[in-house]
Amino acid sequence: MFELHPDLQRDCYTVGQFKLSLILLHKDANYPWLILVPKRQKVREIHHLSEEDQIQLIKESSHLSEVMTSIYAPVKMNIAALGNVVPQLHVHHIARFKEDPAWPKPIWGATEQKEYSPEELEKRLERLHSSLVGEDFQAWCGTEEDAGSNQGFFTP
Amino acid sequence: MFELHPDLQRDCYTVGQFKLSLILLHKDANYPWLILVPKRQKVREIHHLSEEDQIQLIKESSHLSEVMTSIYAPVKMNIAALGNVVPQLHVHHIARFKEDPAWPKPIWGATEQKEYSPEELEKRLERLHSSLVGEDFQAWCGTEEDAGSNQGFFTP
Repeated sequence: MFELHPDLQRDCYTVGQFKLSLILLHKDANYPWLILVPKRQKVREIHHLSEEDQIQLIKESSHLSEVMTSIYAPVKMNIAALGNVVPQLHVHHIARFKEDPAWPKPIWGATEQKEYSPEELEKRLERLHSSLVGEDFQAWCGTEEDAGSNQGFFTP
Repeated sequence: MFELHPDLQRDCYTVGQFKLSLILLHKDANYPWLILVPKRQKVREIHHLSEEDQIQLIKESSHLSEVMTSIYAPVKMNIAALGNVVPQLHVHHIARFKEDPAWPKPIWGATEQKEYSPEELEKRLERLHSSLVGEDFQAWCGTEEDAGSNQGFFTP
């Protein structure tokens, strides 16, 4: 059974899921920063996914990039599967701007994490929930206890 | 017509090409660091490629990751499409080790570039040329003047 790695659970809010991947929002409010986690057990590398899952992953990744581009109008999307610290396969999707605190450098370790205010967070999640149609999107509205489980998802 | 961006031409050696992408080796010898550049004009984002090209890209990316894993036996592959500085779509593939100078951080900007010796470079390219079969691989053995053009490729 798929279980979300505790580090990802600690660092992110759950947004919803596509057919293959869980969709997370990183808690760092410096950037619109979403993460796809394919719901497959103990997979650490993209090339360890089946060919079918790899194709589904790039579809979900591009769909997410398109939606993030339409919502945030970034200068550039940054897409990355690093995972040197957290061993569960996860793919970063970060909308980058010339005014963001790390530009033009990669964001990791560039600056101190900034928290979302409850209002900003609610607004960001609502906008994502209403924009992320396609690829069997289901929004998440579970409780803290449901996080990382299969509970709390609904089709908008 | 596809033209390789001059910054990528300056920073990399050409290894060969797959059906969709040019394969480059970054000149920084600190890491086994290869870069795929889809041979499509003026594309900056993965999601701007056609669906067919996206699927081909993930196939070539995973094939490259598998080959790099079999040659270098890294702890982790780092895959990233950033492109904040160089506007041509290019996807980094870096084999990471616990002993490398940036571990566990991302490599960009982490340490001074190290040059390959001519012997190391020749050995690295030869090994790649003999391992990168599949996805219509063609090795490159052109001259400096051919770099970035369609000249100098051959099927091993």
